[in-house]
Amino acid sequence: MSSSETVDDEDTFKILIATDIHLGYMEKDAVRGNDTFNTFQEIMKCAKEKEVDFVLLGGDLFHENKPTRKALHSCIEVIRQHCMGNKPVTFQILSDQAVNFSNSKFPWVNYQDENLNISIPIFSVHGNHDDPTGVDGLCALDVLSVAGLLNHFGRSQSVERVEISPLLLQKGNTRIALYGIGSIPDERLYRMFINNQVSMLRPLEHDSDWFNMFVIHQNRSKHGATNYIPEKFLSDFLDLVVWGHEHECRIVPERNEQQLFYITQPGSTVVTSLSPGEAIKKHIGLLRVKGRKMQLQKIPLQSVRPLYIEDICLSELSHLFTPDQPMVNQKIQAYCQEKVEEMLDEAQRQRLGSPQTPDKPLIRLRVDYSGGFEVFNSMRFSQRFVERVANPKDILHFLRHKETKDGVKGQAHIFKHKYTVYRPSSDVLTLRVEDLVKEYFQTAEKSLSLLTEQAMGKAVQEFVDKEEKDAIEELIKYQLEKTQRHLREKHTEPTEERIDEEVHTLIFTVDLVCCNCVHQAISRAQAHRIQGQSRSAREDELDLSDEPSDIAMESDDDYKAPATRGRGSRGRGQPSKARGKRGRGNFTYITNSHLSCSFN
Amino acid sequence: MSSSETVDDEDTFKILIATDIHLGYMEKDAVRGNDTFNTFQEIMKCAKEKEVDFVLLGGDLFHENKPTRKALHSCIEVIRQHCMGNKPVTFQILSDQAVNFSNSKFPWVNYQDENLNISIPIFSVHGNHDDPTGVDGLCALDVLSVAGLLNHFGRSQSVERVEISPLLLQKGNTRIALYGIGSIPDERLYRMFINNQVSMLRPLEHDSDWFNMFVIHQNRSKHGATNYIPEKFLSDFLDLVVWGHEHECRIVPERNEQQLFYITQPGSTVVTSLSPGEAIKKHIGLLRVKGRKMQLQKIPLQSVRPLYIEDICLSELSHLFTPDQPMVNQKIQAYCQEKVEEMLDEAQRQRLGSPQTPDKPLIRLRVDYSGGFEVFNSMRFSQRFVERVANPKDILHFLRHKETKDGVKGQAHIFKHKYTVYRPSSDVLTLRVEDLVKEYFQTAEKSLSLLTEQAMGKAVQEFVDKEEKDAIEELIKYQLEKTQRHLREKHTEPTEERIDEEVHTLIFTVDLVCCNCVHQAISRAQAHRIQGQSRSAREDELDLSDEPSDIAMESDDDYKAPATRGRGSRGRGQPSKARGKRGRGNFTYITNSHLSCSFN
Repeated sequence: MSSSETVDDEDTFKILIATDIHLGYMEKDAVRGNDTFNTFQEIMKCAKEKEVDFVLLGGDLFHENKPTRKALHSCIEVIRQHCMGNKPVTFQILSDQAVNFSNSKFPWVNYQDENLNISIPIFSVHGNHDDPTGVDGLCALDVLSVAGLLNHFGRSQSVERVEISPLLLQKGNTRIALYGIGSIPDERLYRMFINNQVSMLRPLEHDSDWFNMFVIHQNRSKHGATNYIPEKFLSDFLDLVVWGHEHECRIVPERNEQQLFYITQPGSTVVTSLSPGEAIKKHIGLLRVKGRKMQLQKIPLQSVRPLYIEDICLSELSHLFTPDQPMVNQKIQAYCQEKVEEMLDEAQRQRLGSPQTPDKPLIRLRVDYSGGFEVFNSMRFSQRFVERVANPKDILHFLRHKETKDGVKGQAHIFKHKYTVYRPSSDVLTLRVEDLVKEYFQTAEKSLSLLTEQAMGKAVQEFVDKEEKDAIEELIKYQLEKTQRHLREKHTEPTEERIDEEVHTLIFTVDLVCCNCVHQAISRAQAHRIQGQSRSAREDELDLSDEPSDIAMESDDDYKAPATRGRGSRGRGQPSKARGKRGRGNFTYITNSHLSCSFN
Repeated sequence: MSSSETVDDEDTFKILIATDIHLGYMEKDAVRGNDTFNTFQEIMKCAKEKEVDFVLLGGDLFHENKPTRKALHSCIEVIRQHCMGNKPVTFQILSDQAVNFSNSKFPWVNYQDENLNISIPIFSVHGNHDDPTGVDGLCALDVLSVAGLLNHFGRSQSVERVEISPLLLQKGNTRIALYGIGSIPDERLYRMFINNQVSMLRPLEHDSDWFNMFVIHQNRSKHGATNYIPEKFLSDFLDLVVWGHEHECRIVPERNEQQLFYITQPGSTVVTSLSPGEAIKKHIGLLRVKGRKMQLQKIPLQSVRPLYIEDICLSELSHLFTPDQPMVNQKIQAYCQEKVEEMLDEAQRQRLGSPQTPDKPLIRLRVDYSGGFEVFNSMRFSQRFVERVANPKDILHFLRHKETKDGVKGQAHIFKHKYTVYRPSSDVLTLRVEDLVKEYFQTAEKSLSLLTEQAMGKAVQEFVDKEEKDAIEELIKYQLEKTQRHLREKHTEPTEERIDEEVHTLIFTVDLVCCNCVHQAISRAQAHRIQGQSRSAREDELDLSDEPSDIAMESDDDYKAPATRGRGSRGRGQPSKARGKRGRGNFTYITNSHLSCSFN
């Protein structure tokens, strides 16, 4: 039995997972203009065909913070077309919706609104492209949300701390706690994490029954020291993290061996840069959750304009040409042309039997011309492909690697992941504290402009290299006084809040770097690591950890037939009356426990 | 019995009429920012309380062509709040909705959509502020329309001709043919009218039963020769014209004695300029239509920020000050201050018992300082009123009238209409042909850049003043050849369509000005006028014309009780099935008959 034919029962949640749809990306382009709208249509059509319980989006539904009229119009059209109708929604929301949707003018899930006949609710966090702005703090998703077309969740009320109260969903015997956090600038969220300002509420009732999902839209790969969210920051009670923002499709869940959760990174559904990660086939996922078990079926998207990318390094093709050869440029051009033709042939082959796929692919040939070669006119080169390539203007990309040996090799379609699954080495926690201190200051410096780069660099250097215990502390104290003076004297309107905020940060910083504290923290971290190891011995209590074969691309024939229970029916009007009865669940606070151990 | 307590029966349409709501006007202003949203809320709340059958808007729902997120969000919120619910909609649409809403992705009225529970449908044409733009020809209303929140009608498919196919509405025994035309640049529409390119379809069945309404959003007052739509252009079969765009409230229907229809001009619901017309109390209307009778109840708006405006002419206050008096400036300032205080007192009085009315009014004092007086620092003057006036920056407006005698007089709150109701004089039709020819060329000149202003002015002068029959013709012929040459030779890409269009226009022009034609036209027009007089003898066949007392502010006690008929019920889902059965009604073409007589 193929996984798509899996028998789903009353206990099985079926969730369509997609992210980074970027509606409106290149919408003015004559060739690519409709790509994102077509793909959104394909995704929602798929949701309808698969009869999913809901659609879960990981942010960046829109490419522009202020989508054009066309983008908004198309989006609404597709949602109204596919997500409204008489199919009953058979799961319940147990959490307090007034909390989950506290930013909405209609703070309840759209399928329970008695004036809207929703068949497939969409839940989404916002991404960095469609994040809230302005005095009212509205984002593009809120326009959909106020129209009852989408349920925007994971919106943080405060910029100082994030408290994530999950949506508690129940279908038959399956319970999902759905956590989400809309995009926050990475450095700020990073700081909040190490600052113990991120907390997640966990339901006290049935605490071991919940399948805990978390949707996040942040850098997963390291862009600078604090400009990403390390996987290890995320709470280890989670079962599955849906990671948005990263465009490479890594949708097959990957296990983080330290945190003992899985991460699925669906990747974008449109190519927004001509980079290797985007050349990987685009997918969305059909996630089934039953009890604590999950299964993720990857669904290839047909309507996505494919990207073919190839690298050539001229200096490695010395059997074909050398820089001083006569007519070498013509020969190189002919060679490049041949390569492009090969990619176009490949595109043609791949497209067979997939009429939805756009006929003109995206093509990128990266030419490393180091070693004395010269660039040639790429515009004229591209002219030949105008009718067959979607990006004729930028097919060629010339680059020069200084170290030829380590340069990009001519391996088409094979790309190493920029990312590796985090595997803690024995000294990782010890190292981490130092890293964090270092990174923290870089963040603080950048975001608060409190510490000059030079002074900070020197102090950190001294702290790290020379174990000069007082270096940072002195700098901070000096800066603290200076900043307080500065704020009180120079600013015309220094609000007390602003001063407090900055002073608070500084005081925390001073506390943090107090050498004793740091050393204590390192000791605690090491102790914690030992605890962590003993905890991993209890892993087998979790369905997920002992049944890795249950995940990804496997059929779930081994699902046990549960006792039949009445399907939750949904009468019009009735659910909204029930709304008032939902009490706020009992929660316990979970903070980022690793870090609290390290620093408290 | 007051008009608001009128007993409405199954045959009575209740229609809330409003226009020029300008959502988002000054939304960034700290004081006035929410004015338009508050008033829209008031309007829709009123619609709900009055249990109207539908809301009819005359355009410019939004102030900006691309409304901000906040404006769109607020608008959707208000509509979802007030226009959705279980109140049944008890009128039917008999016309082919695929034609009425041909621009919509969901070409049927929102209240018949089985997935939306609409209690009060809104019908709107677009205004010049929220008109369609871009390749897709979408306007802000279309975003509401695709979300099922509003029914956008009156959209013309072509820029060359307008064919208005009415919405045919039936409630009990009452039938309304609702015509609408979204904003078109006045000069273009003017040209289309005189060019016989505007036609209105009339249902053949029950042709005498229909109450014919027309919603238009154009200049009603004359802004330049062809930069408005003369009332006389509108077909005389109409019963009521709802005129948007003009901001002065003239909501009490005014009878056009020539065309025998009534015009209601609701005016804007927000002050967008500090001009006398905007100082008139803002209203919306509750229109009742039963059979061919109508009654319009004007409803004052409470939430509108009022404008008080006063004029003073210093040279007329010689008993108080003369230019050469010592300290005259201080005295004038004190006098102005007193005037503003008086207006503020008046505002305070008017606001009593109306808590919804914003406390800070708009104040404008127009100071005519001609006669040797000097202006003074208006910024300093305004400083005193910052806390009490919504527009402290522009309270004072200094002006100087050259002819003091005809200057603006110090009559506060009494303003002559800029408009007069059109009353045809005996030679109006004869004159009109000449006017039209003149105006037509000005339009053609302006819009097509075919004729130089100078040459045209001279030719027209000769034609009009000196009866120099060949003047225009020669100019046109010369220009025709020149333009053809120009288009074919100079333009790099002269599309055949473009050439054809311009040539066609020129040929028409030549035809038109051919002296014989003009003279024939004048004769025909005179003949038509005679026909028109005999037609007016049949006026008494119309309910409307012989019962003017039935209109405006009158109670409709004299409504005859009709035979009871089944109330149109509206089950969910059922109407959308019925949709397919609606055939396209039988229509007859009505063109602007006056003009066709004149020019064909």
